[in-house]
Amino acid sequence: MKRAIELAKKGIGYTNPNPIVGCVVVKNDKIIAEGYHKKIGGFHAERNALTNCKEDTTGAELYVTLEPCCHYGKTPPCTEIIIEKKIKKVYVGSIDPNKLVEGKGVKILKEHGIEVKCGILKDECDKLNEVFFHYITNKTPYVVMKYAMTMDGKIACENGDSKWVTGKDARETVQKMRKQYMGIMVGINTVLEDNPMLNCRIEENVDPIRVICDSNLRIPFESNIVNTANKIQTIVVCTNEADTDKQKYLEECGVEVVRQKRKGRVNLSELMKTLGEKGIDSILLEGGGTLNAQALKENIVNKICCFIAPKIVGGADAKSPIEGKGVEKMMEAYNIENMEIQKLGNDIMLTGYLKRGSQCLQEL
Amino acid sequence: MKRAIELAKKGIGYTNPNPIVGCVVVKNDKIIAEGYHKKIGGFHAERNALTNCKEDTTGAELYVTLEPCCHYGKTPPCTEIIIEKKIKKVYVGSIDPNKLVEGKGVKILKEHGIEVKCGILKDECDKLNEVFFHYITNKTPYVVMKYAMTMDGKIACENGDSKWVTGKDARETVQKMRKQYMGIMVGINTVLEDNPMLNCRIEENVDPIRVICDSNLRIPFESNIVNTANKIQTIVVCTNEADTDKQKYLEECGVEVVRQKRKGRVNLSELMKTLGEKGIDSILLEGGGTLNAQALKENIVNKICCFIAPKIVGGADAKSPIEGKGVEKMMEAYNIENMEIQKLGNDIMLTGYLKRGSQCLQEL
Repeated sequence: MKRAIELAKKGIGYTNPNPIVGCVVVKNDKIIAEGYHKKIGGFHAERNALTNCKEDTTGAELYVTLEPCCHYGKTPPCTEIIIEKKIKKVYVGSIDPNKLVEGKGVKILKEHGIEVKCGILKDECDKLNEVFFHYITNKTPYVVMKYAMTMDGKIACENGDSKWVTGKDARETVQKMRKQYMGIMVGINTVLEDNPMLNCRIEENVDPIRVICDSNLRIPFESNIVNTANKIQTIVVCTNEADTDKQKYLEECGVEVVRQKRKGRVNLSELMKTLGEKGIDSILLEGGGTLNAQALKENIVNKICCFIAPKIVGGADAKSPIEGKGVEKMMEAYNIENMEIQKLGNDIMLTGYLKRGSQCLQEL
Repeated sequence: MKRAIELAKKGIGYTNPNPIVGCVVVKNDKIIAEGYHKKIGGFHAERNALTNCKEDTTGAELYVTLEPCCHYGKTPPCTEIIIEKKIKKVYVGSIDPNKLVEGKGVKILKEHGIEVKCGILKDECDKLNEVFFHYITNKTPYVVMKYAMTMDGKIACENGDSKWVTGKDARETVQKMRKQYMGIMVGINTVLEDNPMLNCRIEENVDPIRVICDSNLRIPFESNIVNTANKIQTIVVCTNEADTDKQKYLEECGVEVVRQKRKGRVNLSELMKTLGEKGIDSILLEGGGTLNAQALKENIVNKICCFIAPKIVGGADAKSPIEGKGVEKMMEAYNIENMEIQKLGNDIMLTGYLKRGSQCLQEL
């Protein structure tokens, strides 16, 4: 199963909004076939492994990180080929929460006399597809809030300078995240201050869809975002108060404008529903303090990824990763669960999950 | 030597401003004696080990974390008893930078035909006495800046509430630090906001000397600090503008008032010299953002200890660990070297050292 997990990871960034899956076929204690889900629309891991296998698979055992599917989608069901190839026993990591599967895959295999054992390395397998599990259940993107701060909690100096907080390894990890998640979201202030590209610089054609929260359509025509909107999918979200002529012109430049029927600020919960409907399964939120605070307040954040650099800049007015109004008491803080630590060069990366419930009580 | 290091650590908090030292005597591959420096003024580790040893030490080998002393201080030199007890070979961790020793201990042993090998687990042994090495060389306290912040870099909510940022394990570690370091320093704002005791709650009679930076002597007579000044040594530092009557009254309450001959704010570099002269070898700086920024600016900080709790409070105006004016560019940040990570319950602790040179260039 460990090998199957490794294989699954090869699919990161290519399968969204489908899951990543890895599969290993073993006979007489020897691996006779391997496969993974390579690309959305392509064959699933099991089919890739079994059709590529040159040896006789009769009586072999199959390890797969996610329950085999049993429905016709873009490809035929995996249960069919497992039965056809006379596999004796199947080890499953995660159960597929997709309503079309949800244990039915396992049931069908058992009905065909195949022994099935579920929950092998379940936690690791579940983690592979935290995005897919969320999206298939909620129909909204899985939101990962990412920020990089100094050891004294600043994302920029008082005057806004932020080049660079972290070192090479950490910044490369961010690029991988931009490949892994389908969309990237920032507020208009980030566009105005940094004029970013928000693309993925480690590989071609894996850029995330850019989502800009820009209530009043303040985005400059000459910004890098607008200039490259014909090449990289770009969504700008505004409210009803935004200028319709400007919307038209942006659309001519290749920008997709989402106009929310409301005044004031963009509503992020509503936006998540819209993005979900567009098939976007995940968002890397690289916002400044204001957008991040709003995202927490509207309860759309699932995971936090916080980079910390071994440096100190000070400054009572220096920018902080989460601003807004803030909670009133330390007791009412948003709690982060299952925090993990990773060293990246001289920097560290903390990841964790927003504790459900804790945040509902609060007003940021 | 590992055992000697363990033994040395038993002296933490009792030997200041002297070093902590551990010693192990080995004969025929068996430990025949152990000792450590228990308390300032008491016998040194070597003497403790050798005088307690019931076996014949002739031809034995001795492991000691710090070079044996060769001068008469409160106790006779350790070189003498090592020679007298006919030790054959001595393994030394750190060389003692004290001008009275500084390699002379090793030289004397060698002159008496004892084989000496230095630098055994040098880094670990040096770390044991980072305070002592700094103090004996600079005559000013070793300053450890300690703060606890949320995962979004806040030490308190917007309204000042900070109970509690971290959990039990982290707070207990802070109590141990209050035992380990001779002094504890805060600014007057911390006293006015939290009315703290600044004592050590894990053990009796190991409270640090309390140092309050209070330029204008605003400290309330009814504060916990003033109320307990007869029991716990307390130094309040003011400038020439402070009220002399108030100083007199505070002194009657048992407070030691240090009046700096200047206007405006307390000068911390000058204060460190004063505290050094009083024999204070180390200060745990538990300041708020303003005092911390000042300490960095005046270049008195040696080590940083940053606790991070897995929670988020947000707030553009929430308190941050280092405030003041801040550096102008991220490139000009104070760099922290040799950052280490430790898990403490659900929290983490980052420790590191201010990189010399980097900070001299800067104006916080």
